[in-house]
Amino acid sequence: MNAADAPRTAAALVIGNELLSGKVRDENVVELARLLRRLGVDLRRVLMVPDEPELIAREVAELSRDYTFVFTSGGVGPTHDDVTIASVAAAFGLEVGPHPALEKLLRDHYRERLTEGHLAMARAPVGARLLQTDDVRWPVTVVENVWVLPGVPEIFRMKLAVVAAHLGVDRPYVSRAAYTNLDEGTLKPLLDRVVADHPEVAVGSYPTWSDPSYRTKLTFDGKDAAEVGRAFDAFLATLPAGEPQRTE
Amino acid sequence: MNAADAPRTAAALVIGNELLSGKVRDENVVELARLLRRLGVDLRRVLMVPDEPELIAREVAELSRDYTFVFTSGGVGPTHDDVTIASVAAAFGLEVGPHPALEKLLRDHYRERLTEGHLAMARAPVGARLLQTDDVRWPVTVVENVWVLPGVPEIFRMKLAVVAAHLGVDRPYVSRAAYTNLDEGTLKPLLDRVVADHPEVAVGSYPTWSDPSYRTKLTFDGKDAAEVGRAFDAFLATLPAGEPQRTE
Repeated sequence: MNAADAPRTAAALVIGNELLSGKVRDENVVELARLLRRLGVDLRRVLMVPDEPELIAREVAELSRDYTFVFTSGGVGPTHDDVTIASVAAAFGLEVGPHPALEKLLRDHYRERLTEGHLAMARAPVGARLLQTDDVRWPVTVVENVWVLPGVPEIFRMKLAVVAAHLGVDRPYVSRAAYTNLDEGTLKPLLDRVVADHPEVAVGSYPTWSDPSYRTKLTFDGKDAAEVGRAFDAFLATLPAGEPQRTE
Repeated sequence: MNAADAPRTAAALVIGNELLSGKVRDENVVELARLLRRLGVDLRRVLMVPDEPELIAREVAELSRDYTFVFTSGGVGPTHDDVTIASVAAAFGLEVGPHPALEKLLRDHYRERLTEGHLAMARAPVGARLLQTDDVRWPVTVVENVWVLPGVPEIFRMKLAVVAAHLGVDRPYVSRAAYTNLDEGTLKPLLDRVVADHPEVAVGSYPTWSDPSYRTKLTFDGKDAAEVGRAFDAFLATLPAGEPQRTE
């Protein structure tokens, strides 16, 4: 496999004391995960850390080296606990300064109500790219391979449209699933066989405790649709009569 | 500050391909975060990784060194993708074998329906402690300072009762909050002052985009109730007339 064939990978760095203290429930990781899956990007690591600039800078630098894309969530407002912009800049040894395009957007938005505090939101690492789409007026700040996204879920989701437009779809994952009334203890030998015979297919087994319509969900995922189909069919052929309850 | 005074810290290692692919939304981190907060334990890091034994073993070993407690979530069933027990054992150079107490629980539960697959759930790192409470019959496996918790949210929450009983409360956090109709740009100088004057108090600022009853929530957290109160009062004294909308 040469570099052009290598799968695109991603990591997420989720920033905020409010998440680690349990005051706020993260809503962004699952949205990012679903989008990346649809685009064919392999989300490999999610890290949640407090509002500490040195720590964030160190993690950004490391994740940026190890993954095709890094997405940060949170810490981009104007107050003292919004340290993401400065930390991402530090990760790459960049200065932070007012970005003319961001400053113009802020001036146009706040007009006579504009304060120095608002202008703090115009600050970006020097040399950062601002990416946007026709639909999403407020741009996403991108430094090297690091996409700086806001923590507020409504805005995070809006900005994912910019991510989708710029990354595009490349060899998306294909997924099949079967729902059975068998328990994992019974399924284990059947799954072991299909896993051994189809190493390129990721097979997952998920018992439910809350859905009375099935007991265990089995998933089959990969980038080669034919191989996923073969693994799925091979598994179904080993099930006892009356199973699966349904497939998708 | 000597070791006995040092705050208790924690990290969470959340394991599962299904979370990174966005098929399943994590429900456990916020529950763990809230509990640890109540117990006075400082959750410092959350890491979400795929079902890969070597990676998990490496992360467990590192987190175990760096934090007072480590909590894993997920990967504890009997199937091929349940690699947490073996990975935690590998992190400490331990063998894995059937634990007599777990095996007895499984035999009593499944009786004549018991399969080899079920018995896979009796496997534990050799020397692991099994902790339980009178209310929670199924024990939690603990190796050194690593607590192995299941991924299924209903069972995860049940087992948090065991965590709470064994860790106990020690110098819990005190929190105050004020809800204002001011935006962060306006609040910034007021917050900068209280942050500078009260370095022991963690001050957070959280704009809302979905709750029409306020615009920005300010939080004040610390282990010294008097100091939190002083920071909170100092902040309130700087607000303009008509603010805050409410406090808690």
